[in-house]
Amino acid sequence: MGLDRRDHRKPRGSVDELVSRAREGNARAVARLISWVEDEAPQLREVMAALAPYAGHAQIVGITGSPGVGKSTSTNAIVGELRKAGKRVGVLAVDPSSPFSGGALLGDRVRMQDHALDADVYIRSMASRGHLGGLAWSTPQALRVLDAAGCDVVVIETVGVGQSEVEIAGLADTTLVLLAPGAGDGIQAAKAGILEIGDIYVVNKADREGADQLRRDLRSMIALGQTVSGERPEGGWKPPIVKTEAHRGEGAAEVVSEIDRHFAWLVESGELERRRTRRVRDEIETIAVTALRRRWDGVHARVELDDLAAEVLAGDSDPYTAADTLLENL
Amino acid sequence: MGLDRRDHRKPRGSVDELVSRAREGNARAVARLISWVEDEAPQLREVMAALAPYAGHAQIVGITGSPGVGKSTSTNAIVGELRKAGKRVGVLAVDPSSPFSGGALLGDRVRMQDHALDADVYIRSMASRGHLGGLAWSTPQALRVLDAAGCDVVVIETVGVGQSEVEIAGLADTTLVLLAPGAGDGIQAAKAGILEIGDIYVVNKADREGADQLRRDLRSMIALGQTVSGERPEGGWKPPIVKTEAHRGEGAAEVVSEIDRHFAWLVESGELERRRTRRVRDEIETIAVTALRRRWDGVHARVELDDLAAEVLAGDSDPYTAADTLLENL
Repeated sequence: MGLDRRDHRKPRGSVDELVSRAREGNARAVARLISWVEDEAPQLREVMAALAPYAGHAQIVGITGSPGVGKSTSTNAIVGELRKAGKRVGVLAVDPSSPFSGGALLGDRVRMQDHALDADVYIRSMASRGHLGGLAWSTPQALRVLDAAGCDVVVIETVGVGQSEVEIAGLADTTLVLLAPGAGDGIQAAKAGILEIGDIYVVNKADREGADQLRRDLRSMIALGQTVSGERPEGGWKPPIVKTEAHRGEGAAEVVSEIDRHFAWLVESGELERRRTRRVRDEIETIAVTALRRRWDGVHARVELDDLAAEVLAGDSDPYTAADTLLENL
Repeated sequence: MGLDRRDHRKPRGSVDELVSRAREGNARAVARLISWVEDEAPQLREVMAALAPYAGHAQIVGITGSPGVGKSTSTNAIVGELRKAGKRVGVLAVDPSSPFSGGALLGDRVRMQDHALDADVYIRSMASRGHLGGLAWSTPQALRVLDAAGCDVVVIETVGVGQSEVEIAGLADTTLVLLAPGAGDGIQAAKAGILEIGDIYVVNKADREGADQLRRDLRSMIALGQTVSGERPEGGWKPPIVKTEAHRGEGAAEVVSEIDRHFAWLVESGELERRRTRRVRDEIETIAVTALRRRWDGVHARVELDDLAAEVLAGDSDPYTAADTLLENL
């Protein structure tokens, strides 16, 4: 998919044509649509309207974990299992780390070499690039493209740092949290709040010393977390812990079977609809808020945010009054 | 500061009274105002209006770094130096890790015991607690309270994970990034994007093996980052690297002198005004957006976000059209 990102500036085929080629599974068409998402191309509005009737088929699986736990290797193994089951798979590797420099550290093609030549696996890296709205804006729209393009499963993989994994968990139907023995991952896990987002926990590098201890710690922390937070629905899902050795595919089948079991629970409990409603709410909100931000920075804005900020800085106003003025003048 | 968080529910003194006591440096009054921020108390609006004329005095210093680099110890040593210079200091320890369970892992009183009895050091931990707007909403308002209460310097300390340190950098006049030898911090630093936010880099645990190597790596990566990103202003600031051994105070004086040098540069270059304008813009925006979110979830909303989400989920609409509808009906 060595597509030139600037291709969309030349008019080559209408939006409808591109959308219908993407719907047929044409990888170049999918690539172009996702580049439009990354570039915030003006055609997106039309694209999303054309895709609307086809969305909602794909199962979204989030994979997160600290650096070095083996996320790419695990994704690779999981995709292998999904392919054995005949599923069409999309992989979105999201790099939330840098808001400025753009471009994921790992290119699309060096990742997951096992599946690079498989036409039924679409692999794409995305960086947040400091766009207005950042990943919260672009990731759901890229998911929407892959979903409408006929993927049965879309895997979003992201490094688990700070809020990023919470954001990814908000996008996924099922969230996998990966851990590995060593590096004090136990207590780090608690710090990073990942114990509250995992639907399935994977202890990778299970052949290493400390794997059993990590699993035990994890089990008690999950139990504790469920008691404290009360966030889980009543009669809810008890997150399983699966041990894997992803570099040799060990445990991947069990992970996929737990993903299926979780999905069945989601459907049955009504939690799938709740999660997807929340996801779409967030998506709509982010688009609306991004539009508003553009509006109050516009040269024709009746009240400009910069002027209000200057008043607050001078001590002549306060942020609440300024926010009121902003909203009154929308 | 063993203040009962529920105190504000009993009417005990007017907002004006509380604000003037906070202005006199009364720690209990400051504590109550910050609790109001955490609790999103309805009086905040009035508080912020009363504080407006007094804001803008404090110098805001952000301290961030991976877990285990010695952030608390470093903050402790830096506060010690600032106290020697006779400055009144506020410390805000922000825990961005958990959006759900609430409460920072470390309590206010166990932290920084050197300064626990010093009336001119105010120490407070905050967690994001899953509020609408989260830390982006509460941290600037807590800063505003400490600023107006007469702190000369406010230190915001946060664990450097994902976007959290970028958010904190957005709030600070001067951002310190802490690193320590070992744990592959070099490459992690690049991943986490912290090389793009630091005004001053501190290599702590400088007596350990690898400290010089880390400093060299850091120096070349900073140089590279400045070339690539082009984010820094022309004729700009060249981030220094200071070596410290915070547990015995070694290097803290140099850190504080670099903070002063950076602040002088900020004033002279006009960058201080740019940063503070951006900070206030973000603050106003966050309050406005939070108010909007409440509005479109309200029982009397003309168009409810949930209904729009349901249409999109059913494939009858798309997120852009839904966002348009939302905005038209504000």
